[in-house]
Amino acid sequence: MNSVAEPRKPRPNRGEEIRIYGLNACRAVFARRPHDLRKVYLLESRIADLQPVLAWCVQQRLGYRVVGNADLEKLTGSQHHEGVCLEVRRAVLASLSALLPRLPRAPQPALLAWLDGVGNPHNLGAVWRSAANFGVHALILPVDSALAASGAAYRVAEGGAEAVPLARIVPGEDALGALRNAGFAIAASVPREGESLYAARLPARTVFVLGAEGGGLSRGLIDRADLHLTIPGSGAVESLNVAASAAVLFGEYFRQQASARTHRPR
Amino acid sequence: MNSVAEPRKPRPNRGEEIRIYGLNACRAVFARRPHDLRKVYLLESRIADLQPVLAWCVQQRLGYRVVGNADLEKLTGSQHHEGVCLEVRRAVLASLSALLPRLPRAPQPALLAWLDGVGNPHNLGAVWRSAANFGVHALILPVDSALAASGAAYRVAEGGAEAVPLARIVPGEDALGALRNAGFAIAASVPREGESLYAARLPARTVFVLGAEGGGLSRGLIDRADLHLTIPGSGAVESLNVAASAAVLFGEYFRQQASARTHRPR
Repeated sequence: MNSVAEPRKPRPNRGEEIRIYGLNACRAVFARRPHDLRKVYLLESRIADLQPVLAWCVQQRLGYRVVGNADLEKLTGSQHHEGVCLEVRRAVLASLSALLPRLPRAPQPALLAWLDGVGNPHNLGAVWRSAANFGVHALILPVDSALAASGAAYRVAEGGAEAVPLARIVPGEDALGALRNAGFAIAASVPREGESLYAARLPARTVFVLGAEGGGLSRGLIDRADLHLTIPGSGAVESLNVAASAAVLFGEYFRQQASARTHRPR
Repeated sequence: MNSVAEPRKPRPNRGEEIRIYGLNACRAVFARRPHDLRKVYLLESRIADLQPVLAWCVQQRLGYRVVGNADLEKLTGSQHHEGVCLEVRRAVLASLSALLPRLPRAPQPALLAWLDGVGNPHNLGAVWRSAANFGVHALILPVDSALAASGAAYRVAEGGAEAVPLARIVPGEDALGALRNAGFAIAASVPREGESLYAARLPARTVFVLGAEGGGLSRGLIDRADLHLTIPGSGAVESLNVAASAAVLFGEYFRQQASARTHRPR
């Protein structure tokens, strides 16, 4: 049971696979797209937790390997592997034009989050997890984003990465135009001088534009937004972390939608 | 200008000092309690940003040293030092009984957060930053908490650690009794089966009890809480990260208080 011979077929092209780690992240990938599994590495102590995955490997003649902690750290580049690493086919990043037709149509409610200049994979993972919790329909990355769906982001997302698609704007795509045509209002989250989030009435179809850790949103995006929202506060810190801001914004949208459903005339 | 002789007085007791790093964290410490500074280490590129600190050092005959990146990484044990490290007197952790008389008196509104089993300093720092943003009056740690105010927590708090005191329950202290006597309702945040946060009316004097990353709240604390609150969601992930939960809870309390102020008869 210690190890199984690797399948003999040629290795797929480099860059098409990604190593995912973290127990919840791996379970979510397996639950959603088991056919994307290529290889499984795990600590002996995780065999019981991962029985369905290992049974699948045997059935599909996929390789799995029981390895030591040092190997897992090397494979994942992290100490936070939680005893398991899956090599899986990378989920294809949709373009915005491919994403929009898959969303609920106007005037149905829909929520998106556009991450402008977020470069830290832990922040992406944290936003992703909160997005999954509050039913955000997709995350959008700008053309020049350094982010991708990395193993670290998947782990921090705790399975949320499988529930919320990630789309990337492609060069030449008129993202704001396409979003507006699809009935979305563009709501930029700004640290100061916006309308208080708690005083604002959030449109049923909203794109929250969330800024980077350091520089905040790009000026051009702020100027072209339909709403400018500020999470109010005591002023004791300059702003919230981008992941905390995202959780607060998503939660407030969720609250307003739930309240609208309750009070809507039948 | 490169370096200044260290003061000749004997070193204070070990354990009384802490190394703080991160630009906002260091600025906040200096702004609030400059007399606690013992030593300053910085990169040459930070001299301009830290002029007031360096002027204070010269005036107080405190040592500061311009060091290289490798030195700063070693001193802070982190790559995220942001070019500055302060050795400062550790702020004294209050006991709960020392904290309570310093809070606004009942029936005035006041908000506390009790971190049960949170062990990750980054999560402490993230909760701290959000707590500072939303005007939380103090964070409370249980008797057996492994947490302390570490350099990593200070950095992630981005200055929030200076605005929100940290209190630790001391052995034998009847924390729940003391909080209730002071007019607080104990509101446990639970991942399932609590009242929806967005349907709940949060008392003006609330202690949010927030659970650990893994195991959640201790059963005894859940059983003894006055309210059980669940942040609703899609079910796509098991729960929010503790820092995201904290931001959402603090934000909702803030919203309800602001709304109560607006609608209160004059």
